[in-house]
Amino acid sequence: MEARFELGDFELQSGEVLRDAFLGYETHGDLNADKSNVVVYPTWYAGKHEDNRGLIGEGRALDPSKYFIIVPDQFCNGYSSSPSNTPAPHDRMRFPLVTPYDNVNAQHKMLTELFGVEKIVMVAGFSMSAQQAFHWAAVYPEMVERIAPICGTAKTSPHDWLHLEGIKAAMQADAAWADGEYDSQPEKGFRAFMTVAAGWIASQTFYRQGLHLSFLGMQFDSMQAFLDALVAGFSSWDANDLICMLHTWQSADVSNHPKFNGDFKAALGSIKCPAMVMPCETDLYFPPEDNEIEVGMMSNAELRVIPSVYGHIAGHPGMAPPEDHSFIDQGLNDLLARS
Amino acid sequence: MEARFELGDFELQSGEVLRDAFLGYETHGDLNADKSNVVVYPTWYAGKHEDNRGLIGEGRALDPSKYFIIVPDQFCNGYSSSPSNTPAPHDRMRFPLVTPYDNVNAQHKMLTELFGVEKIVMVAGFSMSAQQAFHWAAVYPEMVERIAPICGTAKTSPHDWLHLEGIKAAMQADAAWADGEYDSQPEKGFRAFMTVAAGWIASQTFYRQGLHLSFLGMQFDSMQAFLDALVAGFSSWDANDLICMLHTWQSADVSNHPKFNGDFKAALGSIKCPAMVMPCETDLYFPPEDNEIEVGMMSNAELRVIPSVYGHIAGHPGMAPPEDHSFIDQGLNDLLARS
Repeated sequence: MEARFELGDFELQSGEVLRDAFLGYETHGDLNADKSNVVVYPTWYAGKHEDNRGLIGEGRALDPSKYFIIVPDQFCNGYSSSPSNTPAPHDRMRFPLVTPYDNVNAQHKMLTELFGVEKIVMVAGFSMSAQQAFHWAAVYPEMVERIAPICGTAKTSPHDWLHLEGIKAAMQADAAWADGEYDSQPEKGFRAFMTVAAGWIASQTFYRQGLHLSFLGMQFDSMQAFLDALVAGFSSWDANDLICMLHTWQSADVSNHPKFNGDFKAALGSIKCPAMVMPCETDLYFPPEDNEIEVGMMSNAELRVIPSVYGHIAGHPGMAPPEDHSFIDQGLNDLLARS
Repeated sequence: MEARFELGDFELQSGEVLRDAFLGYETHGDLNADKSNVVVYPTWYAGKHEDNRGLIGEGRALDPSKYFIIVPDQFCNGYSSSPSNTPAPHDRMRFPLVTPYDNVNAQHKMLTELFGVEKIVMVAGFSMSAQQAFHWAAVYPEMVERIAPICGTAKTSPHDWLHLEGIKAAMQADAAWADGEYDSQPEKGFRAFMTVAAGWIASQTFYRQGLHLSFLGMQFDSMQAFLDALVAGFSSWDANDLICMLHTWQSADVSNHPKFNGDFKAALGSIKCPAMVMPCETDLYFPPEDNEIEVGMMSNAELRVIPSVYGHIAGHPGMAPPEDHSFIDQGLNDLLARS
């Protein structure tokens, strides 16, 4: 079921109030009588709730015949409140900064008010939604029973921040970007953005093995043809939405909360629930070392590295190969067996 | 000694003739009587011959009291024939594609005609000049006695090509780029170019450890301040020169020669001289795996991985820390002891 939850006037961490805010979402399966079968699986960068479907299915860990799986759209993805769908004064680049905590708080409001949920069996997430999983456990420990961050960290590392600054700069180098006041998409900037991003989303080995030439069942006769397809595939994304989501990513920091006051160790140390942290060994955004450091600060977390050459996209339900899906499924199943 | 060698009308691999071509160069030390002490150490991307000086010195492997060290500037670096210093019809983006073989052939002409050199003790190189070292050994095997490619491959990998396409796209997204017909540098594009490049030149760990905040003896209070310094430090580079050098890099392929006809294994197999191949373990451009594959196709090559978090710049004489210099020095000394 796809739907929309009205948040009303929603106060962000920054103190700014987003008027008439809302969340898009999709659910899979049915909420059981005692509301004890809820899984939350938010969306990621340039992801909408339908992109999460690939990891959800009968016989999978995220089994809708067992769990009530809620997939909230994160702010700025075009389905939830975003620069592209918000009127003045918060339209375009006037949309305020949304942090992962803002996304989590909005989701919390939806879960409690709309569904009356008090417990979450597991928050699973990929990439930016892995970041949300960490934030969920840190700020609502009494509610979150397990987290499974896949290819994502509790805090955006300096290098990860820099890589994002690079793709942003590529977009904004195009005068057609016009500080977000474009009439039509800044085409050159968007292509530059995607070209730079392509180098980061998968590993050197992915490309060395030529896996881009037969990506997603399509056949490409050159890198350029692959890039053309990437650009076409993402062309419906609004540039302001992409930039604002990027700012959320850059701002991710589980310790950026009054509970922790910037103390990263304390924030991670506060997460007591079982956690299955699954980086991909070749991820250029979130190399395993970042998660290894984080897991070292957590009391009940396992680091399980996805052995894949797909880099970051090893955790993407729509882009990873079946063996990566299976590996992740196993990790989720093992986590679900813990209490 | 800094000087310039006139190549005259120089035919490139493409068949195009570069009129009144020339090479800038610098030499260190003296050529001995039997001309048996020549080391060649070309320049790299966004490098000029003075940037090579950091690895040269008495007591170092590249000791000017023992060797006559020739540092030829590669085409498009502003000292040798380049878009920025060549008149029509080869000015700006009309400058023809230069391959690593073109650079090597021009250097060969200089060595034989200017210095009467018939043997080279060692061709050492970093990054794009590591690529030239491979090309030197493949095309002039009777002349080259040893090669030491540092942080560079015999062929630009698909991912490396893509990362270059990304930084190029970032520059060219700026309308001020104007297909190279700018009056003054495309500032936004140049900044985007440098911002993207910053993510690639060093490793995730380099940034995680905050090494960028005290880079080259300078102190920065933020990533943005570090980026400002990078942009300022490279601002004298002409954008057309940078793009044409990038095209040389993208074109690197030791097998792209009539001798080998695209047979990569044959090209590497033809290199019989001792080789010390030194990738950095955290290099995002040239990960060790690429060199490992290449060394596997060579009969007399050692792979020695630089254990450094500096990523690509571990091999840069002006940017790497002393311990990386020492490691490389040791590798060069060990290579020089072989025959």
